[in-house]
Amino acid sequence: MKAVLVVGDGMGDRPLAELNGRTPLEAATKPSLNWLAENGVCGILDVIAPGIPPGSDVAHLALLGYKATEVYSGRGAFEATGFGMQVLPSDVAFRCNFATADSKLTVVDRRAGRIATVDATRLAEEFKEVALQDYGEVRIIFRNTIQHRAILLFRGAHLSTMVSDSDPHKVGEKVLEAHPLDNTPEAEKTAQILNELTHYFHEVLKIHPLNAERETAGLFPANIILFRGAGKLPDLTPLSREYSIRAVAISAMPLVKGVCKAAGMKLIDVPGATGTYDTDVMAKAKAAVKALHTHDFVLVHVKATDLAGHDSRVDEKVRMIEKVDQMMGYITGNVDLSRTCIAITADHTTSSHTRQHEGDPVPVVIYGPEVRTDDVKEFSERACATGGLCRIRGKDLMPIMMNLIGKTRKFGA
Amino acid sequence: MKAVLVVGDGMGDRPLAELNGRTPLEAATKPSLNWLAENGVCGILDVIAPGIPPGSDVAHLALLGYKATEVYSGRGAFEATGFGMQVLPSDVAFRCNFATADSKLTVVDRRAGRIATVDATRLAEEFKEVALQDYGEVRIIFRNTIQHRAILLFRGAHLSTMVSDSDPHKVGEKVLEAHPLDNTPEAEKTAQILNELTHYFHEVLKIHPLNAERETAGLFPANIILFRGAGKLPDLTPLSREYSIRAVAISAMPLVKGVCKAAGMKLIDVPGATGTYDTDVMAKAKAAVKALHTHDFVLVHVKATDLAGHDSRVDEKVRMIEKVDQMMGYITGNVDLSRTCIAITADHTTSSHTRQHEGDPVPVVIYGPEVRTDDVKEFSERACATGGLCRIRGKDLMPIMMNLIGKTRKFGA
Repeated sequence: MKAVLVVGDGMGDRPLAELNGRTPLEAATKPSLNWLAENGVCGILDVIAPGIPPGSDVAHLALLGYKATEVYSGRGAFEATGFGMQVLPSDVAFRCNFATADSKLTVVDRRAGRIATVDATRLAEEFKEVALQDYGEVRIIFRNTIQHRAILLFRGAHLSTMVSDSDPHKVGEKVLEAHPLDNTPEAEKTAQILNELTHYFHEVLKIHPLNAERETAGLFPANIILFRGAGKLPDLTPLSREYSIRAVAISAMPLVKGVCKAAGMKLIDVPGATGTYDTDVMAKAKAAVKALHTHDFVLVHVKATDLAGHDSRVDEKVRMIEKVDQMMGYITGNVDLSRTCIAITADHTTSSHTRQHEGDPVPVVIYGPEVRTDDVKEFSERACATGGLCRIRGKDLMPIMMNLIGKTRKFGA
Repeated sequence: MKAVLVVGDGMGDRPLAELNGRTPLEAATKPSLNWLAENGVCGILDVIAPGIPPGSDVAHLALLGYKATEVYSGRGAFEATGFGMQVLPSDVAFRCNFATADSKLTVVDRRAGRIATVDATRLAEEFKEVALQDYGEVRIIFRNTIQHRAILLFRGAHLSTMVSDSDPHKVGEKVLEAHPLDNTPEAEKTAQILNELTHYFHEVLKIHPLNAERETAGLFPANIILFRGAGKLPDLTPLSREYSIRAVAISAMPLVKGVCKAAGMKLIDVPGATGTYDTDVMAKAKAAVKALHTHDFVLVHVKATDLAGHDSRVDEKVRMIEKVDQMMGYITGNVDLSRTCIAITADHTTSSHTRQHEGDPVPVVIYGPEVRTDDVKEFSERACATGGLCRIRGKDLMPIMMNLIGKTRKFGA
């Protein structure tokens, strides 16, 4: 028995006036998702807990069966490992943005006008080897990834994730001092390093010739770097040990890839899987079916449904759900349905109205040759709420799927 | 107000091809169970947690309201106390099998051909008083129970349950060395005693005249004893103290009897209650109704539904469910329905296909004169999933029942 879990990022939504009170899932044409609902068991799922809006990192931790509230510190380390950087258990990593600030360090643009990767790479050259005089024992590693995105990693003893962000998360606010969030000397020291770095990066960037060129061209200068999401890599029991499975993940998003890697999963990069509206979902579907030949469990993550929600592009969200439906059609049509468990859910609700992650539960369906089916015939938020799974938690999904393929261990005699 | 809880061991199942996609519960004729569903409130129940297959010991701990994941160490102590042995809080007990091994200590039969109790009793005579030279301070008590089953109990200071089994749980594998499962000297010592005993028992048994007789008669010699399930008796708050009730249990199975005894319940032995297909369920029903005159809470456990699942005898499982139904008919017909809460559930799902305990939830119904009924009219896995109890945990059932008979205490002001 094998298992496939498809996660439509932010696919859940709320009833929208633009869709006459329907959700994007309810409005979409989705024969394959409905086939799964009719032949599987449905329910709704609180990814973390009722009412709590999860980020994609904690959501995937939960959907992989981990207690996210206990193991999660911050996104930084997942981004780093997902991007391919080596992350040691004691390393503290941060997600960074190249940004634009004025002379009083007020944030003008949090993404330096979504700076092109080529420009960010040229600026990042300056920070390949940063050494702060007072903290010579800490190795400081900086890498830009895509566009304005970058990663900062501290390696050394006596570091802490208990520090606040320098990123004010809002245009028009001042770049923040990082503060220790507990009374330990480790947090104090980590905050001091961050604050020194903020000024060091700013001094180097504000006189960088590339930024002069950008200003001449009418572009935002990338003259500051904002830090957020201090995190260590949690010590997770790998899925291979927990369930004796070979597990693999297909995602275009470093954050999700990082979580999967931390869970000991192999990562497959699929050409054409971009994490944006033009992503090639069929290439992902084919890669998933192929991976199933050599693995027991495949997770497929599709980002674009979430983008549409954040952008409040309702029609685009419906269209992306229909692409996910085609993907599910390919998967159900190309696996041995008598030996495969197929589930689909979302990692959170993204409201196309508020443009934010929301804490509403998400729909879930699990197909399997021996599941106890129910009367649900449609895959949507409201239809699934009447299903045979009732209401479960994110961390329960993995044990439920593994049980259906004979991979959970008995507790007791 | 009184309460009766009936537990059909392994009664839950999955849709089976042999039954045209129905489960044994769905296929059975069960007017009394359906009456309870129609007049009670239904739901599904994760005995421990979604997807986790429970053993009958941890399942009954949970169904009696205890946090099984926190209090359970191993089955040994429950078997011992359920069989009537005195078990002190510091004692470490093991479930044992008389088994057959070849000269290289490879297991040939894990039950010595299901050796007759009379033979096992004769062999066990040899081990009434075992004293190991190096561990004189540890009292070693050995008792055979039924057929190949036996119990080993260590009494003394500095013992541990953190030791692995000598039982390889598989024919064709070598008898295992017991290993300490943590770094304590207690675990180290307990493992050493077990390993010495393995060899001592083998030396005595392999030259025992009874085994020579058995071999002559073409029977498996019982020349080794396999240990498993190291456990101490957990310190449980008795039901009498938790809910101010007089509680009694009716079961033929030492393991379940042991759990009930550890919960402070009185045990009633019912003649004809055998734990096998021929068990006299009506005698149990009558004993339950009678016990209700002098007690507030009666638990009735029926083993045979589980046997049928493990044996993959689908028709037999349907027939056993129909026997349980007749039992429920007697109980509902002979108690004061205006003053009695009656619940029935299973301690786990046993798939008649995989022949194993599975982590699928089990159906549950609670009848009571004042319960909030729902639209469910059939007691089965799928029908109950739409019921008014929604999806609950095993440990929630007891407080829910006790609340209905006015035996839970208010929390707060």
